[in-house]
This record gives sequence, C-alpha cells and structure tokens, in this order.
Amino acid sequence: MSFPQTFVEKFLSKKSGQKNLKAGSIVTVEPDHLLTHDNTAAIIGKISPELEEYGIVNKNLPLIVIDHIVPASTSKSAQNHKKIREFVEKHGVKNFYDAGNGVCHQVVLEKGYALPGKLIVGSDSHTCSYGAMNVFSTGIDRTEAACLLLTGKLWLKIPETIKINLTGSLKEGVYAKDLILTIVGELTSSGASYKFLEFHGGESLSISERFTLANMAVEMDGKGGVFPCDQTTKKYLEETCDISSSEYEELWADEDAEYYEEYNFDLDKVVPMLAKPHKPDNVIPIEEYKEDLLFDQFFLGTCTNGRLDDLKIAAEILEGKKIKKGCRMIVAPASKSILKKAMSEGYIEILLEAGAIITPPGCGPCLGGHMGVLAPEEKCLSTANRNFKGRMGCKESEIYLASPATVACSALYGKLVDPRKVLDN
Amino acid sequence: MSFPQTFVEKFLSKKSGQKNLKAGSIVTVEPDHLLTHDNTAAIIGKISPELEEYGIVNKNLPLIVIDHIVPASTSKSAQNHKKIREFVEKHGVKNFYDAGNGVCHQVVLEKGYALPGKLIVGSDSHTCSYGAMNVFSTGIDRTEAACLLLTGKLWLKIPETIKINLTGSLKEGVYAKDLILTIVGELTSSGASYKFLEFHGGESLSISERFTLANMAVEMDGKGGVFPCDQTTKKYLEETCDISSSEYEELWADEDAEYYEEYNFDLDKVVPMLAKPHKPDNVIPIEEYKEDLLFDQFFLGTCTNGRLDDLKIAAEILEGKKIKKGCRMIVAPASKSILKKAMSEGYIEILLEAGAIITPPGCGPCLGGHMGVLAPEEKCLSTANRNFKGRMGCKESEIYLASPATVACSALYGKLVDPRKVLDN
Repeated sequence: MSFPQTFVEKFLSKKSGQKNLKAGSIVTVEPDHLLTHDNTAAIIGKISPELEEYGIVNKNLPLIVIDHIVPASTSKSAQNHKKIREFVEKHGVKNFYDAGNGVCHQVVLEKGYALPGKLIVGSDSHTCSYGAMNVFSTGIDRTEAACLLLTGKLWLKIPETIKINLTGSLKEGVYAKDLILTIVGELTSSGASYKFLEFHGGESLSISERFTLANMAVEMDGKGGVFPCDQTTKKYLEETCDISSSEYEELWADEDAEYYEEYNFDLDKVVPMLAKPHKPDNVIPIEEYKEDLLFDQFFLGTCTNGRLDDLKIAAEILEGKKIKKGCRMIVAPASKSILKKAMSEGYIEILLEAGAIITPPGCGPCLGGHMGVLAPEEKCLSTANRNFKGRMGCKESEIYLASPATVACSALYGKLVDPRKVLDN
Repeated sequence: MSFPQTFVEKFLSKKSGQKNLKAGSIVTVEPDHLLTHDNTAAIIGKISPELEEYGIVNKNLPLIVIDHIVPASTSKSAQNHKKIREFVEKHGVKNFYDAGNGVCHQVVLEKGYALPGKLIVGSDSHTCSYGAMNVFSTGIDRTEAACLLLTGKLWLKIPETIKINLTGSLKEGVYAKDLILTIVGELTSSGASYKFLEFHGGESLSISERFTLANMAVEMDGKGGVFPCDQTTKKYLEETCDISSSEYEELWADEDAEYYEEYNFDLDKVVPMLAKPHKPDNVIPIEEYKEDLLFDQFFLGTCTNGRLDDLKIAAEILEGKKIKKGCRMIVAPASKSILKKAMSEGYIEILLEAGAIITPPGCGPCLGGHMGVLAPEEKCLSTANRNFKGRMGCKESEIYLASPATVACSALYGKLVDPRKVLDN
C-alpha cells in the first residue's frame, strides 16, 4: 500500500531501488558524488594499502576542491595540497578544482554538480547546502568517505523531516541570513538532530538565499535541508551552468506527507538578527541589543554569504564611505567566478576604496586557518555560519554572526548597527 | 681644503652639519624617518619602560606599515598587529598604514616619503630601496631602531662607495631584474660589504626599474645604493605624489669623487638571468641552463617586482593563455594602489583567467609567513630578492629568482623558459 512521503523518504526509496520506505528505514545507496577538500589527504591516508591495490571505485565519484587553506599557509598545508594533486593525477580523478577556484560548496554549485535529484555526500558538514538545488546532500565522516572511495556505497537511515513553512517576503534591510538565524534560534542548535528540513513556500527566495538557508541546516544538527525545484532553480541551472531540465530529475514531497514537526515563519516579521558567541542559536534581534557592541574585525564571505549578491549588498552600503578607523574588514569572495563578476560590476573597487582587504577566493579566515585570525580579546562580526569558540583561530576571541548588510553597516561605525537605520538614510 | 665627494660623503657631511667628511668618518645624524613593519611590536617591546616614561621623540619619525603577515595568519600575528595599533594610537604616530595598504617600501615610495635628500632608516634590510629616489636609506638593527624612537639620533660610519656605470639600454625580453642579477653575480653576495653603491648612467631606467636595482643593493651586502635625482624622479614625484621640486633638495656625487671600486655594465649585453638556490649571486644566464628545470609554483610580487609595470609584463604574456596544468601562480601586488590600477587596466582579470591567485597587497609568500608556503621538494620561480634556504617557509624546497617576464613565460610551460623565445612568437 502506497502512502504519502516526505522528500527524503521518496528520494531515498528511489535511490535505493525500493518503494515507499518510511523514516527510520536503513538503505544502501550509491552517491553521485563524494566531496572532499583539503582533508582529502587525510581521507586517502586511511586507505593507502587498499587504494594501492584496488584504486578508486569510480573516477567520477570524487569532487575535490582545495579551498580551506589557500594559498598554503604552512609547509604542512602545502604538503597536504601536494598529496592531493598526486592522488588526483594517479587515480585519474575527473572533478578536481585546485586552490583559487573558491569554496568547495560554491564551486559544486557553479559547476553544475548540484543537480536536482542528485545524491551528494561530503566530508564537510556544510555539504547540506546543495539542498538549495533540490539535491539530497549531507556531511559524512572522513572514515566513511574513505570507504566510499573504495566501495561507492554507503548506508543511511532515512531521517524524519521537519517542515518549515515560509510565508510573506523579507522587508528592506532584512536578508536570508536573518531568516536562517531566526530559524536556528527557534529550533536551537540541537533542534533538528538527525532530522531533515523541508523548506516550503520559499518561491520568492533566490538560489543564493536558499543556499544560505540550506547551508545552516547543520547548525540545527539537521541531516540536511531541501527546497523544491522550481522556475528559479531551472533558470539558475540554465543560465549559470547551461544545463536544461531534461538533464535532471526533480523530486518533491507528497502533499500529505507525515512530518516530525512543523514550523511557520512569516518573512514579513523577520528582523535583522545577531548570533552571539559561542553558538549560532544564541540569537537576538539587533534592535533589542542595547549596549554598544564594538568590533575589531568584519568578515564578509564563506559558503553562507560570500556570493555576488552578498558582495553587492556590502558594496552598495560602503560606496563612497570608509570603514571605521582602527577596524579592519576582510572580504573573501566564495569563488573565482564571483570575484571576476564583482570586479566587473565595480564592487571590488568600492570595497577596496572603503578599506576592505580582498582575499583570494576560498574559505579565508572562516575556519581560523589563516588570512584573518583574531587576537585574544578581539571581536569579529562575520557572515559565516559558525561562531564556535576558537573557530577563527583564537579561543580568547569572540565571533558574532549576521547578514552581509549588518556586517557592512556595522563596519562603517565600528560597532553593531541595525542595517535598517543606515539604509533609511 | 675642499675635495670632491661621493654622494654618501656629501650627504652625511651635510646631514651631520659638518663639511667635507670622507668615508670612514663617524657621524651622528637625525634621520627623517624610521620605518618599521610587523616587527614594530618587537621593537617597542625592547623599550617598554622608557616609552612609558618618555614617549617617542618625534611623532613624525616613525613610518609604520603592517605588511608582512596580512591578514593575520595566526593568533600570534594578530596580537602583534593589535599591539602595533595600540602603540600608534597611544603615541600619536602620524605615519601609519594598516594591513592591506601594501609592502612597506612601496607604500613609502607612493606616499611621497622617499624624497630626494631625505635620510630614512628602517628595521628592514630592503630599506635601501629608496636610493632609487636619491634618498640615503639603509636597514638598521631592531635594537637600534628602538633607541632611535627615544633619541631621534643614531651614528653611522660613512661607507666607501662602489661606482656602477650603466651604459646602453636593455633589449626586448630583458629587464631591470636581469640587470641587477647580473650585477649581484659579478659583485657577489658579499662584494659590497659596508659599501655604498652609486648608480651612474641609468637615465633610461624608470623609477620602478631603479627601485628593483636599489632594492637588491643589500643582496651584495651593500649599505645602500643610490641614483641621482633627474627628470624621471621629478616627474614621478609630481605625478604620483603631487610633490614639486621645491619641496625637496637633490644631491649628487662630485665629478671626481674617489671610489673604492668601479664597475661597468653594458645594458645591451645583459641577458635573462636566473639565480639558483640558495643565494642571489648564484646566477646563470637562462640560455646557458640546458636541462629542463620544472617548477611547482610561480610567484610574482614583492618590493622587488610587484609593481604595475611588472604586472603589465606578466599580463601581456599570459593574456588568453593558461598557466601549466598542475602548477600554481601567485600574484601579490606590492600595494593597494597598484592592485586598483591593475584592475582598471584589466591585468588582474587576465591573470585570474590564466589561473593565477591574487593575494591581498603585502609581502605575501616572499618571507614564508603564509599565502604560498612551499612543500618539501617543491621548486618555486620567484620575482623576489632572496632565495635563501627556507625563505619561503620550507627548508627542503628550492627558490629560483628571475624577472617577471621569465616567471610569466615559465608559468606557461611549467618550466624555465627564456622569455625572449616566447616574446619572439
């Protein structure tokens, strides 16, 4: 007997060649792609003898992007990159993007790997981002990634699903990042543990905005978060990747599917939000933050908010102005393609004139590897997805999360500013 | 009785308020500026109690540029920067350029500090670069720099001078870097120990080319190297810094001055040169290097060769082409102003298209701090001034020095190439 299914029930039933599986079932699937990045060397290190004997199961399976510490900041990271290049060469890995192409998730999106109906796993927790493109994608452990390289298979327990209903539209000065911080605040950092998020009603959101939302599903401990494939999705694939709808197979939940929980968010009511240290769910509406909150560093970038629209928002705010004296602002475009477009649109020049430092495309200082590590006692306002203690390389520093508009407006004053106040003027 | 003097004899006589001093005399002078960079924190750390009691002697004396590790690659470097900003604020330092402005020497040049007739010392060995502008400039020890901050004075022994006569002009495919490598090869790395270099006959050289030459005076262990102030100098100051000749006082050697040694270099005969590991004087004409010399990394930048003309040379070579697969190329514009001009001229886009990574303006990987450190066994072809063992962060790697044209042409093939062969096609 057939029953209505959630996206993930339907998707994993299909991928495992079974019918009508329900949440809780365990399936064995063959992912379309396995994403790894600078950690590839560590992963292949786990299976060196097997690799020597059998090689990788499928040269098209791995998606490798060197993005975390680029260019290499130490001899150790340089050696790491070197091992990856040698592995790519030796095993004929087809999908390899060396340092300088951008953050892995953005590269996967732009190069057309994140197609509706695909199953992508990655040894990076923010692999869940491709849910923006109607992809089932999730982060897996490094050891599991290593085994997958050899076998091409892995098992998954079909998660239960939390339905997120979005209505209305975001007001001026309020962005997708404010929405997802609102959602994370409501569900909490453990609120979606081994659950999948289905975003309904987000038709008004661009692919970039959906990416910001899906990206942070894991900040609620979710297995992933997915949007339907609609005209926005199709248009993006056609225009950005030259891929027509005949080349992928969209899929969505049944009307009456059974959900673990259901939440409603009225986008009209969302306000600029701030996540305080040291957890993304430690949120507060900026208008309720009464004291002066001074920052030393402002960071615009990452797989959450380093796209062209994010750079555009910041450039429009900073045009003809200077960031507060004594403060610094770091901008890391999420990909080379974004950097080039931002240059031709004049955003990069505006940001440079305002006093920002533009880093090469990549993860930049998000993970504390280099290019913007904080000093003890310093505070950073960042567009990233995580403000964990020590995330930006120093346990005695503090990271606050907000939208690109909040980061840009605050950079002008050196302190937390509600972007609506600046945009009003 | 008056006798003919070298530049440095005449200059230091004047600066010390004496007449007709000869090489070997010891003078006490008051430098116009003291340059420090990321090492400022270490310098002020040497005189903390005195600074607390007396402060700095002159708020206009220090020139501070944060350029070595920008943005901060570790919490330690971030803390270092923080201490510098606090020092600047507390002591009212007037000439401060935070991270992102560029390599200190280029910033000093562009901002109009390097004026003919000035005496500039710096706790950086390449402070000698300003000789390109008819400045007496030289590197000093950190402890001396610390004392200078308190007293405003230091002593110098007037060096003997080596006269370098330049005739003819450089042929196509041959650049100032090839000339200085030729000179370093001839004089050797210790050939100018506590000697000053006077460059005569370099009228055809641009300020950028003179900077490349003066910059490497210290690679022969010279105290400095100086050019006369001519129409090229005056035009540069007028156009770049809006400074007229009434604002500085040029000075040059007397006709019959007595020199320690004299060398003649015919620019027409200079050929593309390569400095092999691990010393800048280990040079060979590229046409004489017969085996394939493969490189992993190519680096264009630094105070030696990171200027607009250098980026232009590389962009013209790389336009519409790709750097060799498996290789990487890092470009670090020497200043923000250069980066912006290179963007508006289209050079940055060409370099990105060719596959290069553009780092923020600064020293980049030259000193092995971050942003392009090498792995063991790797080889880098660089436009920098030093190829010392471990200079780029890994003692098991090798650094070769050449001109921007040689670096760009070689990047196309992944191996050493005589640029004349590429430019001919």
